[in-house]
Amino acid sequence: MAAAARLAGRARPLARPNPGVGALVVVDDRVIARGWTQAGGRPHAEAVALAGLSPEALAVATLYVTLEPCAHHSDRGPACTDLILADTPQRVVIGQIDPDPRTAGQGMKRLQAAGIAVSLLNDAASADSLRGFLTRQREGRPWVTLKLATSLDGCIALADGTSRWITGDAARAHVHAQRARADAILVGGGTWRADAPRLDVRLPGLEARSPTRVVLTRAAAPEGTTGIPAPEAIAALEGVSYLYVEGGAETAAAFLAADLVDELHLYTAPIVIGDGKRAVGALGLAGLAEAHDRWDLRERRQLGSDSFAAYWRTR
Amino acid sequence: MAAAARLAGRARPLARPNPGVGALVVVDDRVIARGWTQAGGRPHAEAVALAGLSPEALAVATLYVTLEPCAHHSDRGPACTDLILADTPQRVVIGQIDPDPRTAGQGMKRLQAAGIAVSLLNDAASADSLRGFLTRQREGRPWVTLKLATSLDGCIALADGTSRWITGDAARAHVHAQRARADAILVGGGTWRADAPRLDVRLPGLEARSPTRVVLTRAAAPEGTTGIPAPEAIAALEGVSYLYVEGGAETAAAFLAADLVDELHLYTAPIVIGDGKRAVGALGLAGLAEAHDRWDLRERRQLGSDSFAAYWRTR
Ligand SMILES: NC(=O)c1ccc[n+]([C@@H]2O[C@H](COP(=O)([O-])OP(=O)(O)OC[C@H]3O[C@@H](n4cnc5c(N)ncnc54)[C@H](OP(=O)(O)O)[C@@H]3O)[C@@H](O)[C@H]2O)c1
Ligand SMILES: NC(=O)c1ccc[n+]([C@@H]2O[C@H](COP(=O)([O-])OP(=O)(O)OC[C@H]3O[C@@H](n4cnc5c(N)ncnc54)[C@H](OP(=O)(O)O)[C@@H]3O)[C@@H](O)[C@H]2O)c1
Repeated sequence: MAAAARLAGRARPLARPNPGVGALVVVDDRVIARGWTQAGGRPHAEAVALAGLSPEALAVATLYVTLEPCAHHSDRGPACTDLILADTPQRVVIGQIDPDPRTAGQGMKRLQAAGIAVSLLNDAASADSLRGFLTRQREGRPWVTLKLATSLDGCIALADGTSRWITGDAARAHVHAQRARADAILVGGGTWRADAPRLDVRLPGLEARSPTRVVLTRAAAPEGTTGIPAPEAIAALEGVSYLYVEGGAETAAAFLAADLVDELHLYTAPIVIGDGKRAVGALGLAGLAEAHDRWDLRERRQLGSDSFAAYWRTR
Repeated sequence: MAAAARLAGRARPLARPNPGVGALVVVDDRVIARGWTQAGGRPHAEAVALAGLSPEALAVATLYVTLEPCAHHSDRGPACTDLILADTPQRVVIGQIDPDPRTAGQGMKRLQAAGIAVSLLNDAASADSLRGFLTRQREGRPWVTLKLATSLDGCIALADGTSRWITGDAARAHVHAQRARADAILVGGGTWRADAPRLDVRLPGLEARSPTRVVLTRAAAPEGTTGIPAPEAIAALEGVSYLYVEGGAETAAAFLAADLVDELHLYTAPIVIGDGKRAVGALGLAGLAEAHDRWDLRERRQLGSDSFAAYWRTR
């Protein structure tokens, strides 16, 4: 399932508006086919993986799929449950139940009713690979990643605002790759006015992946952007499952204070600034106990001389 | 030589006032004896390693020693050069020349004159293991390690000063182990007055290793401490080769601005504080270019949920 979850990563974000799903077909411990949701959401991962397999292979095959196959028909293609019933693998292993009320366990039931052995794993790898989709379905809002790029002592700029450059090329390329995987990027009105950031993807071949630009502002949205008046308003961002928040400090604090940050991306440059600008504004903590046990280290790597760490909110 | 340098680490800080030296005796690619400077500085590493070896073994043996064997007699024991001449290994490989003017190449010359094959490596591992001693000899001051324990966003305390606790038990034990390896610990007058810190080693069995306490202050030294009126005055701290600076922010900034920090120890707790106290005070940087290319990542490890990173000043 972890391998299927990794395949699902390839579907992000092009599968939009569908979740990025991964599927593997295994016979005798060997992977004989694989698939992931294609651009625009169709064909689905299961359809890609099952296409062209012989009935003999299918009769002894196990289909691993990160998300419950959909049970509902759509104008855009057949329900995956029907596809699977037509192809009939011996066994289906599902990562996560699809919380979409049109499926929500119906897909599993229909497969079982047809005599296919079905198991539900509820494993972390498939859940993580579907986190944007699941957060949208369960919480009615996108999964939020907050990016902070700081010096060793936590500054994002000199006191005069100079912040070009804190981090190096490899870290900046990593940021652009994150943008390419997001559905929307958000900055605060202050950063928009100060930096007029392009917020686009400047990686060869990925320029067309530049996501929607969103500005947190109590004023009118700047031209070419969507404005939201408060962090909670991210719920209204249609079709956005992954939101990438790039600062500044007041915006970072507003999202953290609203407990709307799911993932924290820290880029740390090997420099000391001292009395520079801070990464995060006032949070109004009453004590240190409030701050603890909220963040789990999920990944750490070197990007040139900068270090990258991803922390996920414990929930 | 890297193995001998690791042995040298065992001598720190008990070898004081002598440098911690490591020695290995190798015959046919096998280590047959080893030694490091003993408590109080005697016996020296070479003496320990060579003790009791047969003339037959010595005739085909290579002695690896991190520091050039001393050429000068002392009231406290024989010169190592004489010991080696008495034992006569086939070959001697030396890490670093002893900059002490009483040796400074004389040890090497005397061994060569006696027909022993001598090589000088000048390798990084032996230099690093002798960094306190070499900095004392060359710059006339101790090697300075600055410790900072911060949140992910670079705060060392809440806005009201609360800093118990930012980091967890494993990080605090690591700090105590660092104290035990230092010759002296320094804090600023502000931290002394605010926290009345004990600055001792609270690790089972190592309580007696608590180093000298030094306070950076323009006023009189608090009782039980040595006072210094400016960072540069560390040169006057006799017998101190390793100085461990524990803050606060103004003191950290004073040492960084004077370019008197050789090693930076960062403990980062997985918490976000926002508008807390900063780790480092005003440095007065004119631009970001000044801040870059000064720090090399040397070590990183997890200490419970905290992360530890050591950066060394590039020189
Ligand atoms: N190095 C880096 O990684 C990095 C990244 C980003 C930014 N920066 C720097 O950070 C600076 C700007 O940071 P900043 O903290 O001043 O500004 P900011 O967070 O970008 O923007 C503050 C503005 O965001 C809006 N806002 C904040 N909280 C809100 C809330 N709860 N509800 C509604 N709107 C809210 C308001 O916009 P309106 O005033 O429009 O109503 C507010 O004035 C710039 O100098 C920029 O260069 C550095
Ligand atoms: N979480 C942590 O890791 C940590 C560690 C240490 C401290 N802290 C906190 O930090 C706070 C204290 O920090 P701080 O920045 O206010 O004070 P500080 O750096 O500890 O001390 C400032 C004092 O140091 C002396 N000083 C500073 N620069 C000097 C210079 N260039 N020459 C001579 N003397 C100099 C002066 O002492 P005199 O006034 O005596 O002349 C000055 O008032 C406390 O709240 C403490 O709890 C936290």
